[in-house]
Amino acid sequence: MAFIKNAWYVAGWADEVKAGEMFHRQLLGERVVFYRKADGTPVALQDRCAHRFIPLHLGKIVDDRIECLYHGLQFDCSGRCVKNPHGDGRVPEAARVAAYPVHERHGMMWIWMGDAPADASLIPDYGVLDDTAAFTSSRGYLHIQANYELMGENLLDLSHITYLHDGYLGSPEQAGADQVVEEEGDHLLCNRWMPSVTPPGIFNMLYRQDGKPVDMWTRMLWMPPSCFLLDSGVHEAGAAQREDHGWYYGVHILTPETERTTHYHFAAAMPIGTRMSPETDEKFRALRRYAFEMQDKPIIDAQQEAIGDADFWSLKPVLLSIDLGPVRMRRAITRRLQAEAEQTA
Amino acid sequence: MAFIKNAWYVAGWADEVKAGEMFHRQLLGERVVFYRKADGTPVALQDRCAHRFIPLHLGKIVDDRIECLYHGLQFDCSGRCVKNPHGDGRVPEAARVAAYPVHERHGMMWIWMGDAPADASLIPDYGVLDDTAAFTSSRGYLHIQANYELMGENLLDLSHITYLHDGYLGSPEQAGADQVVEEEGDHLLCNRWMPSVTPPGIFNMLYRQDGKPVDMWTRMLWMPPSCFLLDSGVHEAGAAQREDHGWYYGVHILTPETERTTHYHFAAAMPIGTRMSPETDEKFRALRRYAFEMQDKPIIDAQQEAIGDADFWSLKPVLLSIDLGPVRMRRAITRRLQAEAEQTA
Amino acid sequence: MAFIKNAWYVAGWADEVKAGEMFHRQLLGERVVFYRKADGTPVALQDRCAHRFIPLHLGKIVDDRIECLYHGLQFDCSGRCVKNPHGDGRVPEAARVAAYPVHERHGMMWIWMGDAPADASLIPDYGVLDDTAAFTSSRGYLHIQANYELMGENLLDLSHITYLHDGYLGSPEQAGADQVVEEEGDHLLCNRWMPSVTPPGIFNMLYRQDGKPVDMWTRMLWMPPSCFLLDSGVHEAGAAQREDHGWYYGVHILTPETERTTHYHFAAAMPIGTRMSPETDEKFRALRRYAFEMQDKPIIDAQQEAIGDADFWSLKPVLLSIDLGPVRMRRAITRRLQAEAEQTA
Repeated sequence: MAFIKNAWYVAGWADEVKAGEMFHRQLLGERVVFYRKADGTPVALQDRCAHRFIPLHLGKIVDDRIECLYHGLQFDCSGRCVKNPHGDGRVPEAARVAAYPVHERHGMMWIWMGDAPADASLIPDYGVLDDTAAFTSSRGYLHIQANYELMGENLLDLSHITYLHDGYLGSPEQAGADQVVEEEGDHLLCNRWMPSVTPPGIFNMLYRQDGKPVDMWTRMLWMPPSCFLLDSGVHEAGAAQREDHGWYYGVHILTPETERTTHYHFAAAMPIGTRMSPETDEKFRALRRYAFEMQDKPIIDAQQEAIGDADFWSLKPVLLSIDLGPVRMRRAITRRLQAEAEQTA
Repeated sequence: MAFIKNAWYVAGWADEVKAGEMFHRQLLGERVVFYRKADGTPVALQDRCAHRFIPLHLGKIVDDRIECLYHGLQFDCSGRCVKNPHGDGRVPEAARVAAYPVHERHGMMWIWMGDAPADASLIPDYGVLDDTAAFTSSRGYLHIQANYELMGENLLDLSHITYLHDGYLGSPEQAGADQVVEEEGDHLLCNRWMPSVTPPGIFNMLYRQDGKPVDMWTRMLWMPPSCFLLDSGVHEAGAAQREDHGWYYGVHILTPETERTTHYHFAAAMPIGTRMSPETDEKFRALRRYAFEMQDKPIIDAQQEAIGDADFWSLKPVLLSIDLGPVRMRRAITRRLQAEAEQTA
Repeated sequence: MAFIKNAWYVAGWADEVKAGEMFHRQLLGERVVFYRKADGTPVALQDRCAHRFIPLHLGKIVDDRIECLYHGLQFDCSGRCVKNPHGDGRVPEAARVAAYPVHERHGMMWIWMGDAPADASLIPDYGVLDDTAAFTSSRGYLHIQANYELMGENLLDLSHITYLHDGYLGSPEQAGADQVVEEEGDHLLCNRWMPSVTPPGIFNMLYRQDGKPVDMWTRMLWMPPSCFLLDSGVHEAGAAQREDHGWYYGVHILTPETERTTHYHFAAAMPIGTRMSPETDEKFRALRRYAFEMQDKPIIDAQQEAIGDADFWSLKPVLLSIDLGPVRMRRAITRRLQAEAEQTA
């Protein structure tokens, strides 16, 4: 399976890796087990014993190590086997499992699965999730039955909100709004500006709840290979600048599980000062989740099923103006995959 | 997948394609969506958007067109994209999906998926289903987990009714009755004549309900690639000709879904004037359906499972006299496949 | 699929093949149907009609023959078609299904699926199951989702009982006990001697039920390709020899179903004179079954899933002293497979 390896991926919410417990997940086609040392430091190891290939997560944590359930071999946080309870106890040099750099940041557990040095400064900036003085946030997770690039295209081409999310995130007057795609280093920013439109469901809820025309914007930032940050909102039609409410940050993070499945972590960071009541706020979250789970997910899953194992380009997709962002994303991913393949070769 | 393309296949009962709704089904390995224009004309399109491959049947019907749920592209009944609501609205020439000729006849929705011109006069004649002055008819559908040729062999070799349908459609005295196979153009007619036999379950029910010996016949007509019409019945043993009751037409129509699954539409047309009471008539239909669903289907599904992905002939099936019809059918199918392959090449 | 063919395998318990009924199972990748002749002699035939490949077990037994459900062909116990009820009744020479030598012994139905002559004297000796004067026995069956070699390694390397079966079959003091592997002809004997250990759960139950230290032994005999006999027990720590209780024979018999699934028949033969009450005896059996079903099976199934379709050695398993028996088993199996391949070529 071809995934960009030298990158930070989100393995889960940081608090899913609990003290004294193991958390396991398939990431980039590899099975990985997570646990915390007694001091709380998180560890990520290949989830397959070097001896007889039993998933290590079936075992137990003993003194910051994992002990395999089958024959009691112990692996430390570097992946090295440090105890063989059998015979003379000698540990063969090859008795190792892969250990992956992990880093907790912004409430998420980040993992680096490539061979290049893991530089924590490369972790995408989701500081809005930490800024509790300015934002309140909520979060969710979906398992997508599709390759992460299909989900990434969904995020980079938000023209679909007018159709797929009509009444929830989009409204008919948005049709025809063109996307402007900007590049900032290896980041892509896909902007849509939709002046004087009826505020779609959750934006109306977020704003004045009076249905009067607003100007609406979506600004989706792609941080390769699969992290996204959306700045989206509405303000009074014709007003010069955003107000202290009526907008929020959307966090969208994709992690390939396999070639055909994806872990999708998402969150919303709402600026404090919203006009929403607790009930409206609850409804806002529920409708947003509904849009992702009951509208996006089925269509992306169906898209993958239609594509099957075919190469995406081999099916000759028609290209429209709205595909500018998605196509640049695909090309950038291909370039990085080629660069990694050349470094390995 | 190798299917005969230049032929009419039944996609469903005509009334399954309802006004204002979409009906979708996989046929010859292709996903197809059906709908009706405002004037009732049926349309069949490739069920996969040309842009991002979403099943069109998830969208909606707008002005005789299908609008894709994902980005709002609209396709007309010729398969051409006639509306791109994005950017400058230009529609790329390649923005098309396949459109298939369809024709409603005999209560069924026929589709032509090949490149040759679709000639409605080639639709097999099931006029008995339309002749309500002379026949009453009933119908059913089964999803078969096997290649359509296996089900076709079942229909062309009715010697199996003596064993598989003993007491329902067959009786022990039928054993040994030879098949006579006649060719009429590209049609095959497989006849069995079984003089002086105990009337099998449903034939006894259909006839005098006294269990006295009868002469029985089955005349199965194959109209390639996968349409069948059975004339079957009983009359007084030794009588010279059929009576106005004691027989019926069986309609058996196979449509490949995939290499290993088949849509099976069937119907019975009973000459008006039957001696059956409404209760007996109901029981007749139930037993006939039982024979297909609980006796034929399990054995054909098991046959496919035993064959797996192997080529049928590679398993060296033993050939008996009863296989004359099935073998001719297989050879005729192979010849037509080769002819189509040569035309394409 | 590469299995050793010239060997006796257990197809099932002998009493699973009942008079007048058919018993069918996939063995070494082949589907086989078993039945008994009127005189009780068991028969094993290929479970696929030579004519149209229907599973014969769907048919019926008629005069020591199987009659196929579909067209009534009859096959005798040699696999030859002896009745074709159609046309002139001639039976083609090729109308045969494979017939396999079978032998009932030790309460099990043994089958020989290779081309070499089937010599009943080669059936592994499980006479302990017949010696009702000296032993009481119980038995069980599990379907394992793994190749039989993985299950065989489990049986030949009982060091795992200390970890996987801690408290049931093993106890911590056993760690470090080395295995001694002896060869006797083509048999392997893997012995562990564990002096002065706390008696593990079921051994304590079997013995004095006082938890006092005991000497414990496990002696696992491998009779290729996949039959095992365990002599295991405890006696007073430091005592010179076994007592008339505190030990039992474990019967473990593996039969490949497919490359990735295995039939696992097991039994225990307890020397009469045990100190166990009927209640304790019942609990002993339940705990032993628990160990196999809830501890061994999940780990072996997970091991196969981790290996997937990869070649075992290609994954470079780390070799420890405990693997001496398993590795010799794998090598012996490879040698026999090569020898069979050369004979066939």
